[in-house]
Amino acid sequence: MVNEHEAAVLWFTGLSGAGKTTIATAVERELRNRGSRTELLDGDAVRQLSPTGFSREDRDAHVRRVGFLASRLEHHGVTVICALISPYASSRDFVRGLCKRFVEVHVSTPLVECERRDVKGLYARARRGDIPQFTGIDDPYEPPATPELTIDTSVMMLDDAVARVLRECEAAGVVGPSTAVAGRDSE
Amino acid sequence: MVNEHEAAVLWFTGLSGAGKTTIATAVERELRNRGSRTELLDGDAVRQLSPTGFSREDRDAHVRRVGFLASRLEHHGVTVICALISPYASSRDFVRGLCKRFVEVHVSTPLVECERRDVKGLYARARRGDIPQFTGIDDPYEPPATPELTIDTSVMMLDDAVARVLRECEAAGVVGPSTAVAGRDSE
Repeated sequence: MVNEHEAAVLWFTGLSGAGKTTIATAVERELRNRGSRTELLDGDAVRQLSPTGFSREDRDAHVRRVGFLASRLEHHGVTVICALISPYASSRDFVRGLCKRFVEVHVSTPLVECERRDVKGLYARARRGDIPQFTGIDDPYEPPATPELTIDTSVMMLDDAVARVLRECEAAGVVGPSTAVAGRDSE
Repeated sequence: MVNEHEAAVLWFTGLSGAGKTTIATAVERELRNRGSRTELLDGDAVRQLSPTGFSREDRDAHVRRVGFLASRLEHHGVTVICALISPYASSRDFVRGLCKRFVEVHVSTPLVECERRDVKGLYARARRGDIPQFTGIDDPYEPPATPELTIDTSVMMLDDAVARVLRECEAAGVVGPSTAVAGRDSE
């Protein structure tokens, strides 16, 4: 069952380890449960298709390509949830221009917290110089100037973060209220 | 109005100037007229998003990326019509593996005819050495061993080519019979 709400592109941007994929996965599950047609695009997963480098040009091209994919799915009624570091403002703004309804969520967890967690051990390797051009260490992260939402997972729990994104989706007409509240529409 | 037929990926492969885009565009229009949800992905257009080189690796990555995009759209019920030189068999087979219903159409117009037409003047430039790694001149084209269809536009008119592709689509359950015949379903 697919409902008739508007499609959108929810774009989670932030440092490695900030919590983008965790929030995006939970949001996607909830949107699907509420009857949306959804697709989750994770930056790491898409990269595996055709390995790309990490120069400014490579990163920009990667973000543009994922953004194009997202915009075409959105065009066909799919709500696309994207989790990519996407460090450059110009690349993200390019994608915004492709999409009809673009919700930029800055997962703004500070570097010091991302590095403390270091779930994949990447920061340690980057600090040792084993991974060059690592965002936040020796490659810049350009925070969004006016994102639709900002979520810092060092001070906000996952459930609250997901709830905030869903409220934003409801306000934008992307999804109806949760099924606990809905279901009386046809009375 | 979108009908309930199966989605598919129609993949037109062949030399530059073979007629891929012309046939693909006409097929897309007809499928849309018959109620399919469609998307046309043209190799040249997608390349403009993020300019890519023409090495074997670059071409392979380009085809994989377009194929991934096509497969995700197909997953959400869109019939995707792709027109790409896609010269390497292994790249096309990778895409076939991603898709549920993959219809490979080899537009097999011979090189001598493509070069005679030379609509964009590319063959002349390639022969002069101005465009390196040009498929058919100094880069290989690996024809499909067992494509679903083969169309040589040097001996087949556009209308006949489109009709053949549509018959293949009908046989595969991708689209219903033409509206001239249909429309009495609900009697």
